[in-house]
Amino acid sequence: MPLIRETLVVTRRADGGAHVAPMGVQALTLPDGAEGVLLQPFRPSATLENLQRWPYATLNHVDDVRLFAGCLTGRRDWPMRDAERIACARLECALAHEELEVERVEDDPRRPRFVLRLLARASHAPFPGFNRAKAAVIEAAILVSRLHRLPPEKVARELEYLRIAIDKTAGAEEREAWGWLMEAVACQGEKLSA
Amino acid sequence: MPLIRETLVVTRRADGGAHVAPMGVQALTLPDGAEGVLLQPFRPSATLENLQRWPYATLNHVDDVRLFAGCLTGRRDWPMRDAERIACARLECALAHEELEVERVEDDPRRPRFVLRLLARASHAPFPGFNRAKAAVIEAAILVSRLHRLPPEKVARELEYLRIAIDKTAGAEEREAWGWLMEAVACQGEKLSA
Repeated sequence: MPLIRETLVVTRRADGGAHVAPMGVQALTLPDGAEGVLLQPFRPSATLENLQRWPYATLNHVDDVRLFAGCLTGRRDWPMRDAERIACARLECALAHEELEVERVEDDPRRPRFVLRLLARASHAPFPGFNRAKAAVIEAAILVSRLHRLPPEKVARELEYLRIAIDKTAGAEEREAWGWLMEAVACQGEKLSA
Repeated sequence: MPLIRETLVVTRRADGGAHVAPMGVQALTLPDGAEGVLLQPFRPSATLENLQRWPYATLNHVDDVRLFAGCLTGRRDWPMRDAERIACARLECALAHEELEVERVEDDPRRPRFVLRLLARASHAPFPGFNRAKAAVIEAAILVSRLHRLPPEKVARELEYLRIAIDKTAGAEEREAWGWLMEAVACQGEKLSA
């Protein structure tokens, strides 16, 4: 099994604006030995439509997990900057980002496979180390993205476990991100009991 | 509650060699506004002895979680380089590191509090993004460090949960780190049943 990175993919909308979406991506080596990335956006999704129209994207590696929780809870308006080599945006808060061009697409009824070529990589700030609460927010964000197909008891049990790392190691950003996700869980609970 | 980073602290042994230990550290602001870090090594520990003898340390922010699993399972011999501003080593594989000097010590029978001043920070490689398996290895490493005081059923239940992220998102490094930790858990199980 290959390593899957949880990152933020920025693509270009039809109106030229930036669309940001959290996504698990896999590094791969292209046939000519160059570095590449495999993206598998769901059908339908804005990232899929954007990549089909404009075959460029940036991968944004952030330390602020509010980006992950925010994109899942309707908070998609994060400061952007222009990428260097492609006409596409990248997140201002990224510790590092990669600029990519679509090389090949394999169609699929559920998740088309986009193979992208790495054109540029830039580092903007030093990695400050792991934090258990950030990892817990990412796990909770994945749970929230699947709320409609998971049994509520499983969600409650896993959140109870993840909350330990929040209580012990979170700073202000992680607590805010956790709060947004818990609101989404509470909303879903109300829908189910309505 | 402040943000706690899980990082690798390198201190200088009496023989001049490097000692590396995984530790949760807290950033803080010194009275003059400078950046600092709070370290609370357990008594007794090599990190505590080293800091009392030679008041310098590096914090090493790595992406390779074998360092965390390795230090807990007797694998402490990782390639080092000299720090830039202090007579102390830093990990060669660090994505970034910080160089620190002890500013103040508050004694405590269990965990003395060392306040350190940041002297230098350097970035060596871009942050490549989050990975769920790396976070699972760090959680499992914390469990392994507490094996002797945790009920075996709790350990087994949490490892079963953490294993999902390993199965879905680990690369070779994370699987190797997980294997070392599972050997340590199995050893402890044998001790208990012997």
